[in-house]
Amino acid sequence: MPTFLLVNDDGYFSPGIQALREALKPLGRVVVVAPDRNLSGVGHSLTFTKPLKMRKIDTDFYTVIDGTPADCVHLGYRVVLEGKKPDLVVSGINEGPNLGEDITYSGTVSGAMEGRILGIPSVAFSAFGKDNIMFDEIAKACVKVIKEVLKHGLPPDTYLNVNVPNVRYEEIKGYLITRQGRRAYKETVFRYLDPYGKPFYWIAATEFGWHAEERTDYWAVINGYVSITPLGLDLTNYRAMKEITYLEDTP
Amino acid sequence: MPTFLLVNDDGYFSPGIQALREALKPLGRVVVVAPDRNLSGVGHSLTFTKPLKMRKIDTDFYTVIDGTPADCVHLGYRVVLEGKKPDLVVSGINEGPNLGEDITYSGTVSGAMEGRILGIPSVAFSAFGKDNIMFDEIAKACVKVIKEVLKHGLPPDTYLNVNVPNVRYEEIKGYLITRQGRRAYKETVFRYLDPYGKPFYWIAATEFGWHAEERTDYWAVINGYVSITPLGLDLTNYRAMKEITYLEDTP
Repeated sequence: MPTFLLVNDDGYFSPGIQALREALKPLGRVVVVAPDRNLSGVGHSLTFTKPLKMRKIDTDFYTVIDGTPADCVHLGYRVVLEGKKPDLVVSGINEGPNLGEDITYSGTVSGAMEGRILGIPSVAFSAFGKDNIMFDEIAKACVKVIKEVLKHGLPPDTYLNVNVPNVRYEEIKGYLITRQGRRAYKETVFRYLDPYGKPFYWIAATEFGWHAEERTDYWAVINGYVSITPLGLDLTNYRAMKEITYLEDTP
Repeated sequence: MPTFLLVNDDGYFSPGIQALREALKPLGRVVVVAPDRNLSGVGHSLTFTKPLKMRKIDTDFYTVIDGTPADCVHLGYRVVLEGKKPDLVVSGINEGPNLGEDITYSGTVSGAMEGRILGIPSVAFSAFGKDNIMFDEIAKACVKVIKEVLKHGLPPDTYLNVNVPNVRYEEIKGYLITRQGRRAYKETVFRYLDPYGKPFYWIAATEFGWHAEERTDYWAVINGYVSITPLGLDLTNYRAMKEITYLEDTP
């Protein structure tokens, strides 16, 4: 019976993680370790500079006070599971998509990235939708992907970023392997005045848009498919290496 | 005369950012926007969920209260520079190296990543050393790289991760284009008891080690070279795409 370590970035109370927890229970042991608050945008952040506390909510259900998704993976693996590797780190279901270069900010994707760095097969799940997200329907698609991953395994240094359209399970068009797409919008900084007349700021992405190039993550979900992007840990831009040889200077 | 937007993740008071600020002043306008505290390990985190305040310390010198390096790039570009793109985003000098997959946690590298996402050429600098870091010497090597980047430009979607050995400027062996290496250690979770007898935890990497494969970032710095790794925004593991076709399911 497999053991799952389930994390997220929306907080332990989020309907996305609860739906996935229930859907995974028939498959094995589900250990949930999740942040105590919404950490959307937190990225691949690991808390090195201060100590962390964990609170037990229920059997196999913990929250890390002020902790990031990567912290949750560490404490779940090293403390709750006492150093025994789970069969799969599962992150999500995120309330909203994680597509294009936005995944570099994503706490959801970073939970899976952290699992992979620790040598554990890992998958991140996000819902492509804004309102009225049908987490129970989306969880069925997640379970389908997870069953295949448990059966076939993942290549080394690979973790998955999965985005599921917000439709009924039967309405999903199919499951596609995709590459990371590119965003077509920028965040904006909104300016306010505080009660004392001094400015403060809020960084926000209020509009979403991506370049819908074929076989990208965005292209898949807008066409009704589940997008499955294999991700790696190497950020090197190999093509650029030959274009910056002017920087080399060796005796 | 070029404008530089200078950020870091160690905080505005760090000797690394001060040394780089002084070294860049003869080249152009240097606008410093840095976090108000040490944020090592913060990764590519952008603060979407709450407002931010900025404090002016001096002319062209600001700190973002509770802000991340990516927040500093946004507020520097949109607010301090009033939406006018700087010629270069410069992040660092970090007090310690940023090598291998550790760069995914790095606030320093994330500052440069954020600049690149906003369409600005960007470079991150880190010192390969632990104690007695000679920031003034390292800043000379940074200036050499920056001058070349201003002259030749960077390919699209590329930003640089530069690590400089902690030696006198004249002792640097040379400058090499490298690829991201791989780490050979894991973080450990340390367990403590609080004054009430309850456990708390501290995630820490107390030992460093990398696989010293040739032409990697780590290999360059241990051999006395400045390591210059071009990074991209695409996390797709293209090689793995063919190995997980078992997940495809289309009608």
